[in-house]
Amino acid sequence: MERIAIIDIGSNSIRLVLTQINKNNCFSIIDEVKETVRLGKDMTIYDELNPLRIEKAIKTLSFFKCLCEAQNVTKIIAVATEAVRKASNQVDFINRVKSELDIEIQILPGTSEAYYDYFGNINSMDITNALLLDIGGSSTELIWVEKRNLKASISLPFGAINLTEKFSLHKAINEKTEKDLKEFVLSFYKDIPWLKQISNIPIIGIGGTIRNIAKISRKKNNYPIDNLHNYHISLDEVSEIYNMTKVKDSGERKKIKGLSKERADIFLGAAGAVVTLFEFLELKDLYVSGCGLRDGIIYEYILQNSTPLNSVLDFSINNHMLNYEMDINHAKQVWKLTQSLYNDLKSILYIDDNYNKILKTAALLHDSGIRISYYDHHAHSFYIIANSKINGLSHKEQLMAAYIAALHRKNDFKIDLNKYEKIITERDIEIIKKLAILLRICENLDSGANSNVINIFCSIESNTVIISIESKANSPLEISQCLDCAPAFEKITGKKLIIQSSNC
Amino acid sequence: MERIAIIDIGSNSIRLVLTQINKNNCFSIIDEVKETVRLGKDMTIYDELNPLRIEKAIKTLSFFKCLCEAQNVTKIIAVATEAVRKASNQVDFINRVKSELDIEIQILPGTSEAYYDYFGNINSMDITNALLLDIGGSSTELIWVEKRNLKASISLPFGAINLTEKFSLHKAINEKTEKDLKEFVLSFYKDIPWLKQISNIPIIGIGGTIRNIAKISRKKNNYPIDNLHNYHISLDEVSEIYNMTKVKDSGERKKIKGLSKERADIFLGAAGAVVTLFEFLELKDLYVSGCGLRDGIIYEYILQNSTPLNSVLDFSINNHMLNYEMDINHAKQVWKLTQSLYNDLKSILYIDDNYNKILKTAALLHDSGIRISYYDHHAHSFYIIANSKINGLSHKEQLMAAYIAALHRKNDFKIDLNKYEKIITERDIEIIKKLAILLRICENLDSGANSNVINIFCSIESNTVIISIESKANSPLEISQCLDCAPAFEKITGKKLIIQSSNC
Repeated sequence: MERIAIIDIGSNSIRLVLTQINKNNCFSIIDEVKETVRLGKDMTIYDELNPLRIEKAIKTLSFFKCLCEAQNVTKIIAVATEAVRKASNQVDFINRVKSELDIEIQILPGTSEAYYDYFGNINSMDITNALLLDIGGSSTELIWVEKRNLKASISLPFGAINLTEKFSLHKAINEKTEKDLKEFVLSFYKDIPWLKQISNIPIIGIGGTIRNIAKISRKKNNYPIDNLHNYHISLDEVSEIYNMTKVKDSGERKKIKGLSKERADIFLGAAGAVVTLFEFLELKDLYVSGCGLRDGIIYEYILQNSTPLNSVLDFSINNHMLNYEMDINHAKQVWKLTQSLYNDLKSILYIDDNYNKILKTAALLHDSGIRISYYDHHAHSFYIIANSKINGLSHKEQLMAAYIAALHRKNDFKIDLNKYEKIITERDIEIIKKLAILLRICENLDSGANSNVINIFCSIESNTVIISIESKANSPLEISQCLDCAPAFEKITGKKLIIQSSNC
Repeated sequence: MERIAIIDIGSNSIRLVLTQINKNNCFSIIDEVKETVRLGKDMTIYDELNPLRIEKAIKTLSFFKCLCEAQNVTKIIAVATEAVRKASNQVDFINRVKSELDIEIQILPGTSEAYYDYFGNINSMDITNALLLDIGGSSTELIWVEKRNLKASISLPFGAINLTEKFSLHKAINEKTEKDLKEFVLSFYKDIPWLKQISNIPIIGIGGTIRNIAKISRKKNNYPIDNLHNYHISLDEVSEIYNMTKVKDSGERKKIKGLSKERADIFLGAAGAVVTLFEFLELKDLYVSGCGLRDGIIYEYILQNSTPLNSVLDFSINNHMLNYEMDINHAKQVWKLTQSLYNDLKSILYIDDNYNKILKTAALLHDSGIRISYYDHHAHSFYIIANSKINGLSHKEQLMAAYIAALHRKNDFKIDLNKYEKIITERDIEIIKKLAILLRICENLDSGANSNVINIFCSIESNTVIISIESKANSPLEISQCLDCAPAFEKITGKKLIIQSSNC
């Protein structure tokens, strides 16, 4: 077990992320602290960091250092972005932090910042082609991802803080100011040669401004899932939120549900930059990412190389299995049998292969709830799957996987259609029930958790499905437990279930 | 890490419980399997176990043995109760299990069975004086607990299975049969000299019949909490459930919501025995226990002695803190500060000391949700505290603790009064909010998780509360984070919050 700390000295906030790395390289975040120091604000005319803000930064870093010591952190990776990058007194600041706190700050060039954004996201979202947009306090990164590779990137020298200062955006905006703001950011966008080639891909949005846009949307729509990662917003809604905000001053903005009070004064300029980018490229879809620079650094440290993961979902599920100390042999065996059963029966279930990822997640994590309590663990697995950050799944897929896992022991876990009507349809519920009965059968086939049942073969007849079982030793109890699923199976498929041993 | 298995060969079912014991002697159940073998049924006229049922028992035990091997269990403790205890062919059965499966079965005398029931419950419920009632398949244990000691116990030779067989209770019951049944069990109760001394204490009910009574009650009342342990039922309701059941035959009983289909045929006699005991002793309150014999064996193994725990709640919280791999120093420090703040401020909060257990649970487990995910961990802590088996708290106390923990970071975790209106009142919500703000202040005082703030002292003035902080090093960030709670504190107490360092 090793604990590392990432310290991210941004222009708006300084953040600490404590990550615990366990055996087999699985990791989990164990603490995260943010202080809104605003190092990028009130810089002097000589582009020096403001002395009062330097003091606050030092106090914050000193506190972070104590926290690291209390938590037995063995490695601190500290990086600084635009505010320090452009500060004429950066060396003084860095030397002071080194001598007073023994923390070495790396100043990241814009290209590195963009790279870590890319690497954090390519390993935590199911992205093939996308434009990543990271709006920070004093800079904005644009990263073009094509076929999962970083094709081009740029760091632009504006962000939430310096746009606010330049255009006095803590006030409500008038027509003239709005025009100036949009023209200002547009002049940068227009100067990027590769940006014009982009069309018809989603934007993945990173950073506090984007998260706040999503939080406002979530409140407005009564969205039932708390997880922001992978939240989808259309351009129309982003524009609507921007337009609703721009007529208010900072004080009034603080009353907007979902908008953080700390960000109310610096929200407008960055939101305007997002809208302008969408309009310029005629794009329509924004997916919020909860990952960025800090995650990129963590993934680089853990993977020890710069090759993106082959499967974001597989890595994420595996990470959860290890973190929850699950019985991985049993989980994998249940998934193997479930997949086989699914392939054999899909012709009578009338469901297509789109559901493979969902079924895999449900099968591999069906017992995750035992970590909370063995009793009612199916219900706890629902909670864990629905509420963990499972990378590589949409919110709908994640919720469906949670419901399938919840049904792995009995039929009576209630699907809360009232709560989730925005996400799950009646048709989805049908699919959940079909996939769940497959999982339940296969869970019972490995009820000894010893992979006794090696393979299954199905034959589909007019009124029955016969599952033949190849097992190491005899399997009367597995078969009898399995037959408990027969009534539910018949209700769902219209066919009786027969289970027989194919052992010689 | 060590894994032990308890195998409990009862008259109705054979059960396996796998327990993982981690360092510091914390433990958790990782698997539980039940097969309804009914070894106590169809015994021959020579009081021999039925050969077909012996075969089924051997198959079940063989399957359990495989499961133990697959799960790396290093010790199997197998015990048998009434059916084997009274069987004339018990030696053959035990020898066969030993030679075929290498499992040594201990036949527990009735007094040992009663003792383990006592020991399982005294360590998992907040009992001072109570009558424990464990109705099994072929025997019933009565255990009188006075001042947490086992004062007297007896094992009676009737249970769900043999009562059903003796009085043909799989059918609906007629007046004559009911009279016979009640007189039969009453004749045993009347013969117990110490039983007559009992009055005015609750019954703690153990075993499948009692759990089924509770499940029927829970369904009927739409009770919002799944946990059966500590569920309360009045005698009136037990009688109502018994009366509703007695007019139905086994087939009709299977339609009763909450009554397990496997138990429908043998439910009536045991339920009648419960009602008769209540009436005989003129008792009124039944609390359901999810613990019994198997837990008694586990506690004996873990505690390595026969002294009951001093504090069931403390042991249970500590067990959860260890299992969830929490930062125990931080948790304890937050509890220490919260308790001190609570004592200093209780005169202006108008709450009494009844809430000490609730506040302790919330303070010590406030970060338990990090085990699910750091993000939104306050919400996950709510889920964990509300859904774990926290021994020593009532359902209401547990739910209040969960809500207090959920509010340890922000004010905006919603209290679902609709769902929990049967358990939590408006007044409880007031108390939750008062206690939560204390916890939130103290969480922030140890935000460095390094016990930097050692002590706090409050002075209450007409419009303000001043908290003076004694800390090891300066604590400007702790104080500034703490001040985020000031608006909420003022709303709740009507007083401004001032926090100052008392360091020289």
